[in-house]
This record gives sequence, structure tokens and C-alpha cells, in this order.
Amino acid sequence: MTAQDRLQELRSQVDTINLQLLDLLSKRAQIVTQIGKVLEELGGEHYDPMREAQMLTALEMANKGPFSNETIKALFRELFRASLALEEQQSRAKMRVQRKAKDERTIIQLPNGAVIGDGSFQLVAGSCAVESYEQIDEVGAALAARGVKIMRGMAYKPRTSPYEFQGLGEQGLQIARQVANKYGMAVTSEIMDQSQIPLFMDYVDVFWVGARNMQNSFLLKALGKINRPVILKRGLAATLEEFLYAAEYIVSSGNPNIILIERGIRTFEKWTRNTLDVGGVAVLKLESHLPVVVDISHSAGRRDIAKPLARVAKAVGADGLMVEVHPNPPVAMSDAKQQLSIPEFNDLMDDLAAPI
Amino acid sequence: MTAQDRLQELRSQVDTINLQLLDLLSKRAQIVTQIGKVLEELGGEHYDPMREAQMLTALEMANKGPFSNETIKALFRELFRASLALEEQQSRAKMRVQRKAKDERTIIQLPNGAVIGDGSFQLVAGSCAVESYEQIDEVGAALAARGVKIMRGMAYKPRTSPYEFQGLGEQGLQIARQVANKYGMAVTSEIMDQSQIPLFMDYVDVFWVGARNMQNSFLLKALGKINRPVILKRGLAATLEEFLYAAEYIVSSGNPNIILIERGIRTFEKWTRNTLDVGGVAVLKLESHLPVVVDISHSAGRRDIAKPLARVAKAVGADGLMVEVHPNPPVAMSDAKQQLSIPEFNDLMDDLAAPI
Amino acid sequence: MTAQDRLQELRSQVDTINLQLLDLLSKRAQIVTQIGKVLEELGGEHYDPMREAQMLTALEMANKGPFSNETIKALFRELFRASLALEEQQSRAKMRVQRKAKDERTIIQLPNGAVIGDGSFQLVAGSCAVESYEQIDEVGAALAARGVKIMRGMAYKPRTSPYEFQGLGEQGLQIARQVANKYGMAVTSEIMDQSQIPLFMDYVDVFWVGARNMQNSFLLKALGKINRPVILKRGLAATLEEFLYAAEYIVSSGNPNIILIERGIRTFEKWTRNTLDVGGVAVLKLESHLPVVVDISHSAGRRDIAKPLARVAKAVGADGLMVEVHPNPPVAMSDAKQQLSIPEFNDLMDDLAAPI
Amino acid sequence: MTAQDRLQELRSQVDTINLQLLDLLSKRAQIVTQIGKVLEELGGEHYDPMREAQMLTALEMANKGPFSNETIKALFRELFRASLALEEQQSRAKMRVQRKAKDERTIIQLPNGAVIGDGSFQLVAGSCAVESYEQIDEVGAALAARGVKIMRGMAYKPRTSPYEFQGLGEQGLQIARQVANKYGMAVTSEIMDQSQIPLFMDYVDVFWVGARNMQNSFLLKALGKINRPVILKRGLAATLEEFLYAAEYIVSSGNPNIILIERGIRTFEKWTRNTLDVGGVAVLKLESHLPVVVDISHSAGRRDIAKPLARVAKAVGADGLMVEVHPNPPVAMSDAKQQLSIPEFNDLMDDLAAPI
Repeated sequence: MTAQDRLQELRSQVDTINLQLLDLLSKRAQIVTQIGKVLEELGGEHYDPMREAQMLTALEMANKGPFSNETIKALFRELFRASLALEEQQSRAKMRVQRKAKDERTIIQLPNGAVIGDGSFQLVAGSCAVESYEQIDEVGAALAARGVKIMRGMAYKPRTSPYEFQGLGEQGLQIARQVANKYGMAVTSEIMDQSQIPLFMDYVDVFWVGARNMQNSFLLKALGKINRPVILKRGLAATLEEFLYAAEYIVSSGNPNIILIERGIRTFEKWTRNTLDVGGVAVLKLESHLPVVVDISHSAGRRDIAKPLARVAKAVGADGLMVEVHPNPPVAMSDAKQQLSIPEFNDLMDDLAAPI
Repeated sequence: MTAQDRLQELRSQVDTINLQLLDLLSKRAQIVTQIGKVLEELGGEHYDPMREAQMLTALEMANKGPFSNETIKALFRELFRASLALEEQQSRAKMRVQRKAKDERTIIQLPNGAVIGDGSFQLVAGSCAVESYEQIDEVGAALAARGVKIMRGMAYKPRTSPYEFQGLGEQGLQIARQVANKYGMAVTSEIMDQSQIPLFMDYVDVFWVGARNMQNSFLLKALGKINRPVILKRGLAATLEEFLYAAEYIVSSGNPNIILIERGIRTFEKWTRNTLDVGGVAVLKLESHLPVVVDISHSAGRRDIAKPLARVAKAVGADGLMVEVHPNPPVAMSDAKQQLSIPEFNDLMDDLAAPI
Repeated sequence: MTAQDRLQELRSQVDTINLQLLDLLSKRAQIVTQIGKVLEELGGEHYDPMREAQMLTALEMANKGPFSNETIKALFRELFRASLALEEQQSRAKMRVQRKAKDERTIIQLPNGAVIGDGSFQLVAGSCAVESYEQIDEVGAALAARGVKIMRGMAYKPRTSPYEFQGLGEQGLQIARQVANKYGMAVTSEIMDQSQIPLFMDYVDVFWVGARNMQNSFLLKALGKINRPVILKRGLAATLEEFLYAAEYIVSSGNPNIILIERGIRTFEKWTRNTLDVGGVAVLKLESHLPVVVDISHSAGRRDIAKPLARVAKAVGADGLMVEVHPNPPVAMSDAKQQLSIPEFNDLMDDLAAPI
Repeated sequence: MTAQDRLQELRSQVDTINLQLLDLLSKRAQIVTQIGKVLEELGGEHYDPMREAQMLTALEMANKGPFSNETIKALFRELFRASLALEEQQSRAKMRVQRKAKDERTIIQLPNGAVIGDGSFQLVAGSCAVESYEQIDEVGAALAARGVKIMRGMAYKPRTSPYEFQGLGEQGLQIARQVANKYGMAVTSEIMDQSQIPLFMDYVDVFWVGARNMQNSFLLKALGKINRPVILKRGLAATLEEFLYAAEYIVSSGNPNIILIERGIRTFEKWTRNTLDVGGVAVLKLESHLPVVVDISHSAGRRDIAKPLARVAKAVGADGLMVEVHPNPPVAMSDAKQQLSIPEFNDLMDDLAAPI
């Protein structure tokens, strides 16, 4: 027999074993599914690490090679994981934030008629912080003139240092509400603790969870119990998986109306404040049905690239962009380098209106 | 005149100007100090961005080169910053967490007599989570036998997914308290929301703020109002500066007894769960008087390098280390790969006892 | 005198000192400029750290507060840096790769008539590696049919492991050249060592420097001596500043025809292979006159987001994009997950043709 | 039958299937091993992606659930990978740089009698760059007085900017050799291109590959052909796996005498120049038999934490440390902030001599 022939024969033996393995794997999966049902009757957890440890020990003792025990255990651990996934998939919906059908979409309606997530491109805009009525009124007028429907009205500022400006508090919420009403806009404002929910219910259309609170699970769960939309910002070093799980905390607690914001991740690069993860936005739009907005202010930290980043937000298929606008950026109490002046904002809007 | 002579002469002109500049800078600083005092009388903010903008404009208009307006503004902005720092330093203590004298130390006494921050090397140890009384009792006995004084009693687990084990809750706190009392240990447990403070006061000796909550300023401020020590964990992508400012939130709210934990930062490396920032620990010990503890479990995410990392914690001058211990790591409900078994823990203690 | 009046008076004193400081700074800058000229006559370095150390010591000795010696030294160090920058700017052109006029552009002409950098949007496409004539011919035909003018013809593959496929070598270059000639395309191929230059001159229209060699200064300088364009890839953890300096190595050695490629940077994110730094592309287009191309294959590492990333490349103002295409991606010898099949490539081209 | 009984029975069915799977996996592995031998006779590659694609298609067609095709393919891909690993392990040594026996060690002898890798703790020290004979002589005398055996003699400096000091070149090598001979030390110097090998053979005892060249495979392979030890520095964003593979390039080309240096990785942290990956050092010592040295100068970028980091290097089990020493750090032509003065170096040596 030639080497080629032997190769042929050995390979057909492998093919046979492959099918036998498949057969056993399928049988095993069916039984495991039944186990899952029994466990549910018994009220137990599907995931039983002790049982897994026993099975691995039994396999280790039976293994005579040529695979090492390490390899055998690794292969079976993969199988356990697949089986567990199968059970979880069958007994419980998968992650609620994940896209099931290709065109599934969460579409969010705001009281002022604005819609986000329906394929349109929405702007969320306004000053980094509410500093005075005059400031917000001036910005609000400019935004309204360009059709912006959702205004930032930040009254509580999470700051790195306790000695930095922490926001105007309730007075800031009042100002934002007043201006928004005047111009027919919705208000979004950052909530920093679940104890603030009743206060915010009086002023705010869209709750905002900042990057520092992305994994504040008590706050997330509490926001799952209200019936207003929530903007959830990606943590500055959160993976996309962690980001979606944070949204899942809210959604699984009862509130499906979540808007994700990508705001740049922390890297070693120094010429931009953060690194806008545009590939991440593309992946989020692929994996999730939630609207995704691109924050072109915090991600860049510099106003001179606002225009190309706004075009990028549109091009990648995001549902909108977030941009900071201030009547006089150099004297802003925070984020002076990245806020646009009103003429710069108008310029950006003109640029966005043109096809790319 | 030779080139060398001309060089000599030009340089001496520069020397003269340097001293004139110094003289003006000092005069300016004195006046600015007086301005600070007047502003305090008037109840105004030291930092006045509008005033800065005016001064910069005046300089820009007066500038005839050769420095560009950009450069002049950059130089004066540095000067403004230095002046502001001077005022802040004079009117208010600098950051309270910063070391002023070379041997300044925050020494923390626990009710069970344990002391941390006095130059001794303390262990904080215990299972990742309280799963049952038996488990904690078994671990507690092993820890006590090796002289450990501070036990983990984690009852609320911050998890990436809402579907993962979230801890036993109050029952977990009860178990931890009971076991700690039995063996004369202090209990530390992670608090996740300020609403839990009253509950934790009943069970816990040392409050623990996790990495995800490092910048939860509402929680930090609330912990500044209690009279129990707080362990503060570095956020997974927090800079050292942000870490110290987070501690400052607590200290400036009234609670000086903070223990910092370095637990590894997030990087691209995959063979360890995180990257233990040992240089960061050295810098923290240099810059701050607070005790610093090294978490050798979460930083590595693998138990096979626990021993060298424990030696590292001692060598870098940390005030202690944090290590997870479980009676049966492979079946632990969380962090299975990184928890030490009891024999492994004993082995680690033997290794640590030997001089390096 | 009221507090307000005193404030007014103190502030006007500060204004006067500001102008005196400006005057002294300008005088000092003029003298330093003269020193620079003398130093050039003498053949010395502008930067003289010993001289700086002496000046700082003199200032330290003269300083009587209220600024600390630290602050005074920091302020003067800023001044030294500004002075040095001024000298450098005057005696030598600034970085050659930096944009001086707003509309300055490096426009590169290839022998086959393709032009890059003139405002058009060019495609650089082809398989990750040359594996066979048939493969490259099939891809080449597909590319040519869609008007692609620059083809990848990778014959030397930099691989992490010495045991992975290292490329076909000269045979690969021959195949690429042959196919490119057949379809009227230009060939680009990665050079890994300066000793390969003569060989590459026989086959390649555009030299390609990979991410791993971005700071191989011997190779960069050698490529500065040839008269063919060079594509320079950003290192996987290079800052934008380092990237531009790498280009400067080539340009300052004599070759102005450099094309920059952003290919994603290394971060902690796992759902994409790298993180496409789209903000970095915007900054590069702002700061430099060199053409910038976006690599949508390596940055993402997954073909399912190729379309949105291609639109992003166009939207951000890049001069083109780089995409990998393979007749049968699942069996490709490298980068199987990210290469597009020919139908996927055609689909991408259709998508790109539509306005965004 | 009770739920508990049914659970019991279903679980015993799973146990049976597990053993059947194990049996099939072992049989399959034996056949695959035979296939590997036949392939070697035939001169083919073990890894055959086309064959894998065929097998996956066959399984997909045969799969009737309940596992999805995705899951089945994922499980079999794991199996293919395990099989390939088995073949590779059997037909070829695994990575040569990996530790096989627990106490395996590469011990390197230098011509001056110094030994590294034998469990002793060696110092590699000297100025960042050779600037003059006087400077190196002064440092050399100080190092020799403290028993240092390996001296830095850096004559070619890889610099970010082409306009920065690039080293003295051959003159620098001459100076280093002369001083090393005077004090009985070995010289190590950074080589930047394979064309420099003959020159370096005249002057240098230990070749040094810098971080920027860690993946310059042409240089690595060329250094595999010489019979002098090589110090290989980890790239600034290289994973440990990439680092070991870079060493493997040299070792697999014939030169087993490699010393690894961890020099800190690039992260977002700003208070240290890089982040010393001490956990990485622990992992390298576990996984590889090569000596590992800790660079306490570049990793920190600040001399004020040199002492604790030196203790860390010793504590983690490294084979030595690398530290930069300069007669007058503030005026050094490079790395001014991190080089130790001679008194600081002596202080460090005293500190290191004490037990921790």
C-alpha cells in the first residue's frame, strides 16, 4: 500500500469517528436538556461545578492517552460549556440586549416626539454642565434652531477630584427643564445614585448613566424599574461584553429602553483624550438591537476633529451623536478643550447635512 | 570678538534676564496671594476662567514676537496654574492623602487588635464569596491558625452579568461575622451602594469599596461620614492620580482611615488576568501616607504565581497582601482559577516567613 | 477701600507685571536666537543640558518665595523648552511630515497611473499572503474588475512564531508582479530588512513597512534613499507622535513619498482584533500632509464589520482603505477570519459606491 | 420515579456517554498520530486547513441538533487543535524556550567569568548611552567597586525622532570595550541591524536586542547563528507569548543563550513611564528556562522608586536587574529622569544587600 493510500484509509477512519462523536454529542445534549428540566423542577442551579469536577475526575482516571489529562479535561470543559449554554438558551431567553432577528430594533419615543433607534440620526447636544440659565438658554436656542431634540442638562458632575466643580444640583435640573420646555426639547441628565431617582423623575426625560457608574449594579437595577429611557455610557475601560451586560442589568430588571453611548476607551495615546472605538460601534450595531450613539466630544477631547468624527458616527451606522456645545468654551467650568462654540456647532451641522 | 566671547556675553545677558523674571514672578505671586485673600472675603472662587481669558487676550495683543502667541499663552497658562496651586496650597490643605513628612503614616487599629499601616505586614484573606457556613468556617480556621487577622466576608458580589451568582446577601454577612468572632478576626465586606451602610454597620469592621465603585462619589462621600476603616480598591483602568483622588473623596468627607488596594490594571496581556502595577505601589507608598495592600489574586488571576507575587508585595514595601483562599477552588462559585486551596495557602505562608 | 476696590487694584498690578514679563520673555527669546546662531558657527548642539542645570541652580539660589524652588524650576523649564523650540524652528525646518499650509498635500503617482493623496479614495487590496499563482490571479482579476489599482503582493510574512508560514519569498514577488502586470495594477509588498532592497527593486512599485518594523530606523533610513513610495504601517502600540517621527526618518533621509496606514492599536478589547483609532486618522490628516489609508482588515480582525468600517474610512477623510481579499478565506494560510471572499469584496465595493 | 431518581439516572447515562466519548477521542488521536507520520513521509504540512474545512462541512451536514452547527463546529475545532498540538508535540520538540523539567535552567557563562541564570542575582548596569570616555570610566569604576560584572556600552541609540542623539557609533563601542577591559567587566551593547554583526563581534560580549526590534525576525535569525549570548528586551506592547516566540526565533536558529528582559509595558498610567509587569516575570520564570532580568530604569522612568523595584526584582525570582547609572544624570543626553547618580547607585546596592 502506498503512503497516499494509507493516508486515504486513515482519513476515512477519522471521518467515521467524527460522525460517531457527533452522534454521541447529540445524544448527550438531549440528556443534558432533560437534566435541565428536572433541575428546574427541583429548583436547583443548572451550573453545578461539583458535578463537573466529578465527571472530570472520572475521565482523568479512565484516560489512557494519547491525549494528556490536561487536553482531555480541556476538551470536556468545552463540551460542558456548550451544554450549559444550550440549557440556558432553552430554559431562559438569551441576553435580552442581543439582536435575534437581523432587523430587530429598539425604537425609543420621547415625550417631545423625538424618536431614536428607528434608523434616523439623532443629536444629543448641550453644554458639559449647566452653569447658568443664560448659558443654557443661549445654547438651547442654537440647538433648537438646528433641529436638535435632546438636550444635555447636566446638574451633577462626576469629577475626579472632590475639589472640582460638582455641578449646580437641583437648580441645574430646573434650568435645564425650563430651557428644554421653552424650545420643545427633551432633557437628559446624569444620575449618580439611586437615591436621586425621585428627584430626577421631576425634571428629566432621559436618565443618563455615566462611564464611572456603568457597573454600578444597584443603580442599574433601580433604573430597570422606571419607565423612562436610559442612556448608558461605556466605561472607560469596559469591554463591549461588559457594556452589553451592564445594559442587560437594566433591561432584565424591566426597562427595555436603553441607548448605548460609545465615548472612547482609555489607551496610551496622548493626542486624543480617549480612543474612539468605532469598530466597537459597528460590533454593537451587529450584536444588539439597542440604539447606539457616538460621543464625539469625550472620545476626542479636542474640538478640531469634531467634523470628521461626526461624519464617522453617521457612516458607521450609529443612531446619533453626542456633542458638547458651550457659548464660550475657553471659560467653561469643565471640558473647555472639547466643547464647540455655537458657530462651530453650526458649521458641524452644515457639514453633516452634506452627503459623504 | 570671537564667537566664544560673544556666546559668553549673550549668556550673561540671559542670566540677568532670568533673575529679573524671577523677581517679577515672585512679586506677582505675592499679589496673587493677596487677591486670594480678598476673594475669600468676597466669597468668590479662586479659579476665574473669565479673568484668565482676559489676561491672555491682553498678552496676545501686546505680543510682538519672537515667541508666537501660542507659546506666550502656553507659558502664561503654566504661570496661572502655578499661581492657582499656590493659592490653593495656602488657603486649603493640599490633598489630605498626600504624604507631607517623609515618615508620615496613617495607622489603622481594628477592634480585634489588628494594626495596619504601622510598618508590619498584614494579611487580608478569605474566600472570594461567602457560599456557606461550612466553607467559611473551614477557611476561617485555616487563616486563624496562621495568624491572619482580617477576613474577607463577601456577601454582595459585583458581577459582570446579571445572571451570575450575586452573593448570599445579609445571610453572608451573618456567616462571616459569626466565623470571624469564633476565630478573633475582623471582617471586611464589599459595600455596593450607600443605602447598605446601616446594614453593614451591624456586621462589618472594615468597609470595602470594589474596583467598579472606585469613582462612585456618592458612596465615597457617605463612607467619609462613618467611623470605620475603608478598603478602597483601584479601578481596573484608574490612574494612580484618580485612585488617590477617590481616597480623597472619603478623607475630605471626614474619614481618614483608608487602606488602598492595588489589584492589577487592565492591559492587553492575556496570560495574567490583569497586570499588577508594582511600580504603582511603590509610587503610592512614596506619595501617600495611607497603607497600601497588594491583591495577589485578582491581579494575577492564576494561583501558580501566588508565591512570587506575595514576596513582591513584601519587597515593594506594601503594608500587606490580599489573597483568596477556598476549601475547594475548582468548585468555587467565582474566581475558581485564582483562589488558593488551604494547603496552598499554608505553603504560601511558609514561603513568606523566610527572608528573601 | 472696599474689598472690591482692593481686588480691582491688585488685579491691575498683576496686569502690569504680566506685560513686564512679556517684555522680558521677548527680549530673552531674541538673545537666545542669537545664541543659537553663534552655536551653529561653533558647531555645537543647541540643547545644552549642563547650561540649563547651571541656570536652574542660579535661580534656585536666588529664589526667596513665595513660589517653591520646584515651581520656579518647572516654570523655567517650560521657558527653556519654548526657547529651544523657537531655535529649532528657526535654524531648521520643523518636522517635514507636518502640514504647514492648510491645503498642503503629498500626492503620489504610481507607474500604472494610480494617484494617491490627491483627494481621491484609493483601494489597496489583495490577499494577506501570496500562496500560489492561481490564488493571486483569481483575486487580481476580481480587484481589477472593480478598478483597484494597488495590489498586495506579500511574499515575506512577519509572524509571531518561527514555525508559522513565513511567505513564499522571491517566488511570491514574481507571482505578484506577473499578476499585477496582467491586470495593470501596481504591487506593494512588505520588506523586512534593508538587505532586501535590491531584490524588491526588481518587483515592487510601493515598498511596505510593517507594524513590527515601524521603528526599525536602519530600514527607515535606507528606504529614505530609494525613489519609490513607501507605505508605513503604524506600530501596534505606537503613539501618533511616534508614527509621524517614523515617517520623518524616511522623509528626512530623502524620500518624501510616504503613505501612512492606521491598522488599529492594541487594547484590552477582545471582540475586535485591534482597536481602529479613527480619531487618530482625523488627527493625522490635520497634522500631516501625507496620505493616510485605513486598514479595515487587521484593525477589526473580523469580516462582518468590513462594510461599516469602509464607510468610516471614507467619512473620516482618509485617502483610501486597505482590505484583504482571498478566493477562499477559511483555508487561507494566515488571517483567515478577516479576509473577504470575492463576493464579499464585491458587496463592499457596491456599498462604498453609494453616498452615506 | 421521583425527580431525584430521574436526575440520578440521567446523570449516569451522561457518565456512560462521557466514557464512550473518551474512548473515541483516544482512538481518533491514535489514528491522527499515524496520519502525521505518513504526512512526514510524504513531506506535507501537518496543518491542512482544506481537510479541516471538509470535515467541518461533513459534520454540519450530518448534524441534526440539538447543538447548533456553530457549536458543533466550535467543539470539533477544539478537537482539531488538540490533535494538531499532539502531532506537533510528537514530531517536533515543543517550543525550545519552554521549561520542560521543573528545575531546567539555561545557565550562561561570560568570558569574564560572570554567570547568569544559575540562581544568582546579577546586575547589568551602566549609562543609558556612551557619551565620552571620562563618563564611562567614572561609571565603570563605580560599578566594578560594587562587583557588577556586566556593563552597558550603548553606542547606537534607537530614538523616536531622527533629530535626537543617535549614539557615538563605533567610537562608543571602543570606549565601552576599553573601560570594560580595565575593570574586568563584560560589555553588552544594542545592535540595531543584522549588518552590524561583524562590527559588534569585535567589541561586545553580549548582544542586546532592543524593545523596538523584538520582532525584527531577520535580526533575530541572524543572532541565532552567532555564538555569543543575546539579551532580548520585551517589546513595549508585546504579550508574553510574543516575547517567548521572539526568543524562539533566536533559539531555533541555533543560539540557546538568551536572556529575557522585562522593561515595562505601555499602559495609560502617567506617573510611571511604563508599567513593570512583575506578574509577567513570575510567569516567564514558570514557563521558560531562560534567565529573566528586570529593567528597573525604563519600566519606572523615575529614579525615586529604584530601590523598591530592585527589591521586587530579587523577590520575584528574577536572575538579575538592569539599572542605568550616570555620573551626572541631569545632563545626560538621554533618559535623564531615570538614571541613578553614583551615590544613588551605591545606596541601591546597600539596600539590596540587606534581607527583605
